[in-house]
Amino acid sequence: MEFSSKLLENAVNEMSQLPGIGKRTALRLVLHMLKQPESRTKLLAEALLKMRTEVKFCKSCHNISDVEICEICSNKNRVSHTICVVEDVRDVMAIENTSSFKGIYHVLGGKISPMDGIGPHDLKIESLVEKVKQGEVKEIIFALSSTMEGDTTNFYIYKQIQDYNIVTSTIARGISVGDELEYADEITLGRSIVNRIPFESSLKS
Amino acid sequence: MEFSSKLLENAVNEMSQLPGIGKRTALRLVLHMLKQPESRTKLLAEALLKMRTEVKFCKSCHNISDVEICEICSNKNRVSHTICVVEDVRDVMAIENTSSFKGIYHVLGGKISPMDGIGPHDLKIESLVEKVKQGEVKEIIFALSSTMEGDTTNFYIYKQIQDYNIVTSTIARGISVGDELEYADEITLGRSIVNRIPFESSLKS
Ligand SMILES: [Zn+2]
Ligand SMILES: [Zn+2]
Repeated sequence: MEFSSKLLENAVNEMSQLPGIGKRTALRLVLHMLKQPESRTKLLAEALLKMRTEVKFCKSCHNISDVEICEICSNKNRVSHTICVVEDVRDVMAIENTSSFKGIYHVLGGKISPMDGIGPHDLKIESLVEKVKQGEVKEIIFALSSTMEGDTTNFYIYKQIQDYNIVTSTIARGISVGDELEYADEITLGRSIVNRIPFESSLKS
Repeated sequence: MEFSSKLLENAVNEMSQLPGIGKRTALRLVLHMLKQPESRTKLLAEALLKMRTEVKFCKSCHNISDVEICEICSNKNRVSHTICVVEDVRDVMAIENTSSFKGIYHVLGGKISPMDGIGPHDLKIESLVEKVKQGEVKEIIFALSSTMEGDTTNFYIYKQIQDYNIVTSTIARGISVGDELEYADEITLGRSIVNRIPFESSLKS
């Protein structure tokens, strides 16, 4: 790409550092900014900068937060001895959206993935095990993605807490509510049969 | 979307103002920034801000430029009486990439589009007509997209310059070089037959 302006080139180059944003898309976005009032780009630049420099992570669950202890952890109505272990912030948002969970979270910040150079010590695992050792936890729900990395991470944590008297579970995988069986992928369909639940319990949910 | 941080929410909202960037994509991009060093976000914010506040448009052709008269317009080796009329900066970049054009450009900044509230006076048409009136132009090549808006814009300009002694043309539309006929869309294929060129001239290019 031949640019007629170094300022334009630089802006496009920086934008295209973001994942999934190629040079063409970056150019389209930057040219759009040029058509908008200057104030819009200022608001964007300030919002990104302020977020990046001032955002905090909850000291207890490691979720993104504007305060030291996040609103979920500090909420007296949440069941603090039930902990749902998730990979990142988006999982917390997705589960909160369902209004189906009254416990608290523990955000690992990723999954164990030797291929990507991510080991257990790159994740927030120790602080979770510490909570267990302190006797603060009765139940742990693993809600990582069902990939090899997710399973490895679950098992790594499980081994460290199995000697404590804790109920552990993983979230159910199966056919989406309302989905036709014929459109489900076979692994999901297979699991939904293997992990079938008593008909009586299905009536309650 | 329920955010656990106002800073995060604000950054996602600003990012999702950009065309084609939904809330989910914006969240993914912003979370990526959090995993990168602070300096990366600073470089991005500064590059966007600097580009938006300092970028100039060439006084002659309206292309984006860091100086008053762009490098193409001020290049003595370019044929300044041959003007290629384009919609935006990306078209200049695409044509420059081909190294097939030795004239200069005129960047309209869009097409006449009543549906989008864009009339002739929102575009850089007057300065083009002025150049023609000053006798600076021998040939005009219309290189707008072949849509109704593009055709309308070409015709609007054509009417204003037709009384001056100027050669006008539009770029050729046809099957891409190397493409199989069977994969071409029918409008393009139709045009390529209607606008067929003498075999002798095809030997030269
Ligand atoms: Zn928390
Ligand atoms: Zn110029």
